[in-house]
Amino acid sequence: MPLSVMGHIDSCLTIDLGAIIANWRYIDSLSSATTTTAAMVKANGYGLGAKNVAEALANAGCTEFFVANLGEAITLRQHLDERGHKQLRIMTLHGCQRDGLDDHVAFRITPVLNDLEQLSRWHMCSQQRSESLPALLHIDTGMTRLGFDADQIDWLIENKSALDGLDCRYLMSHLVSAEVADDPTNALQLATFNEWRRWFPGMPASLANSAGSMLSPDYHFQMTRPGIALYGADPADQATDKLMRVVTWQARIIQLRQAKAGDHVGYGGTHLLDRPSRIATIGVGYADGYNRKLGGKASVLIGPQTAPVIGRVSMDSVTVDVTDIDPAHLQHGFVELLHDDYNLSRMAGDAETIAYEILTRLGTRPSRHYQNS
Amino acid sequence: MPLSVMGHIDSCLTIDLGAIIANWRYIDSLSSATTTTAAMVKANGYGLGAKNVAEALANAGCTEFFVANLGEAITLRQHLDERGHKQLRIMTLHGCQRDGLDDHVAFRITPVLNDLEQLSRWHMCSQQRSESLPALLHIDTGMTRLGFDADQIDWLIENKSALDGLDCRYLMSHLVSAEVADDPTNALQLATFNEWRRWFPGMPASLANSAGSMLSPDYHFQMTRPGIALYGADPADQATDKLMRVVTWQARIIQLRQAKAGDHVGYGGTHLLDRPSRIATIGVGYADGYNRKLGGKASVLIGPQTAPVIGRVSMDSVTVDVTDIDPAHLQHGFVELLHDDYNLSRMAGDAETIAYEILTRLGTRPSRHYQNS
Repeated sequence: MPLSVMGHIDSCLTIDLGAIIANWRYIDSLSSATTTTAAMVKANGYGLGAKNVAEALANAGCTEFFVANLGEAITLRQHLDERGHKQLRIMTLHGCQRDGLDDHVAFRITPVLNDLEQLSRWHMCSQQRSESLPALLHIDTGMTRLGFDADQIDWLIENKSALDGLDCRYLMSHLVSAEVADDPTNALQLATFNEWRRWFPGMPASLANSAGSMLSPDYHFQMTRPGIALYGADPADQATDKLMRVVTWQARIIQLRQAKAGDHVGYGGTHLLDRPSRIATIGVGYADGYNRKLGGKASVLIGPQTAPVIGRVSMDSVTVDVTDIDPAHLQHGFVELLHDDYNLSRMAGDAETIAYEILTRLGTRPSRHYQNS
Repeated sequence: MPLSVMGHIDSCLTIDLGAIIANWRYIDSLSSATTTTAAMVKANGYGLGAKNVAEALANAGCTEFFVANLGEAITLRQHLDERGHKQLRIMTLHGCQRDGLDDHVAFRITPVLNDLEQLSRWHMCSQQRSESLPALLHIDTGMTRLGFDADQIDWLIENKSALDGLDCRYLMSHLVSAEVADDPTNALQLATFNEWRRWFPGMPASLANSAGSMLSPDYHFQMTRPGIALYGADPADQATDKLMRVVTWQARIIQLRQAKAGDHVGYGGTHLLDRPSRIATIGVGYADGYNRKLGGKASVLIGPQTAPVIGRVSMDSVTVDVTDIDPAHLQHGFVELLHDDYNLSRMAGDAETIAYEILTRLGTRPSRHYQNS
């Protein structure tokens, strides 16, 4: 009964850690036994709670975790240490910034080295400590965002001693369009990656994000790095039946009201009622992450029936036309914002964005509950 | 020097509490001395930190604070009590839900009563305690979202004893289109409100949000309830020069790279470089609240120069074309995401939304710093 777990909050997210584990195992099953399957838990575990997600995946056997920056890494390290998971690898995709060297070492964080500046910093750090510090080497194959550019890779190939004394665990790159299986960019990036790889014999490699993991075994190498698929969203709409739904989002009915034909609903009066109507005001708004573009497009589930979101989404509430809803279902006092007829993918479409943005921009106001299915 | 305050985080928000106070005083100055100016601090103070904002405004003389639900109210009450501000009023716009009566009383929270059900609950609660509990009475004048509907108001007028024993502090309603000064809905709602008001003689009244406060003194009554204007955004684009900017948002340059003419930038390779370019990758992405629609539209400030955001916004980073930027400015290592040429209003426009959504959906990852100008 969600109203009781909501407490004094008007909406709550239930995150199925068992489903996240199942999704991780599914991605893991796509590659051979010699390929490690890491987990992306950056952006607070795609908005769902990096600590809980990483701990659940660690219990399921995942040993490699990626975050964006050192702040995220330290928070996660401290939590995992407390929970007895001391041997896990945590990698910072943004690498070691000027002021982050000591704490990378102190918190046993592995930086992804994205350019010569980061490499030389980490190399110097390693020498000062007479320690072979771990690192990943990120070479750019077409994203033009992070990673060594072509000139820097050329330099590196000619100056391999720059890597001496470092424990380069993986050579990695990142796919631009993996979610479009037939985009020729994929094969181009793969070819470029393989070409560079020849210059780093014996170094394990990693290229695939979630969508890349689904492309073909050619993209798997020694480590895949799924993110969005773990959280139940299918980047390429190809494995929807294989991925388990992770997020349930429920919100309280804070008021039920009668309205007349001719009444307007919400800010700007954009929705005109063409019949006597019953309106439910729901305690979720754009401040909770319910995108403002969903007004007039989304539907919610009330018992077994769906009802349309009408008028503009407010900061703290939305209005739903429940005229056709059996009053018995309204008695339960809450609605489901994500449901079979209106899943994450459809919500993202109506919000004119991608599921990644829906998840990572869920607000802090909804309470979060974790279950293990 | 922001890089030092950022610590291991890649972007930081600086919130000018002095500017919030100045904006509150400006709205307060629009109405007569007998009109109280409350403050909307719901949705965690429009994303900027309800505790800090409310405390600053309390120090400046504000005594009435609105939040959405009881969860927000309790968090704020506990903070303000700790800081010695025990006499302030905190009101829940969503009113007293079924399970929230005892805690409304325990934490001295005043509910806004939105319908007969909430009224009868609070009335019963009041009787059980033989105490005249405070409340606001919200009547709907056209929003069809929260507040007594027409039938319920009629009933109430005929059954005034339903209010006996309650301390009804204000009769309130909410404007639908106050940000459009010449929208006839404003005058209609004002007339309806005044008509109902006659039936509650002696009860103070409140109608105006930020934009309503700027319409005319007719809308002020005994209390105005500004929100967005406090945070530096002008709902009606009429007082832009009167409102002080509240939010500074800076982000770290995490990598500088060279790219060739013909290279594509970012996911989907949507941005094609037509000349040899220098690209800065900035540590802010949509997970931080930097809307995904800003890719290819926004600009950032680097020293005294602006540079365009190119390609798609990623979860944790954006790419900026800094080819024309003086390298000396890049040395500082950070950029401004909001600046004179690209303020909150322009960012909201490019994101196809309103400043309210930009602010309330700022992520938790950027660090927050408070200053008092």
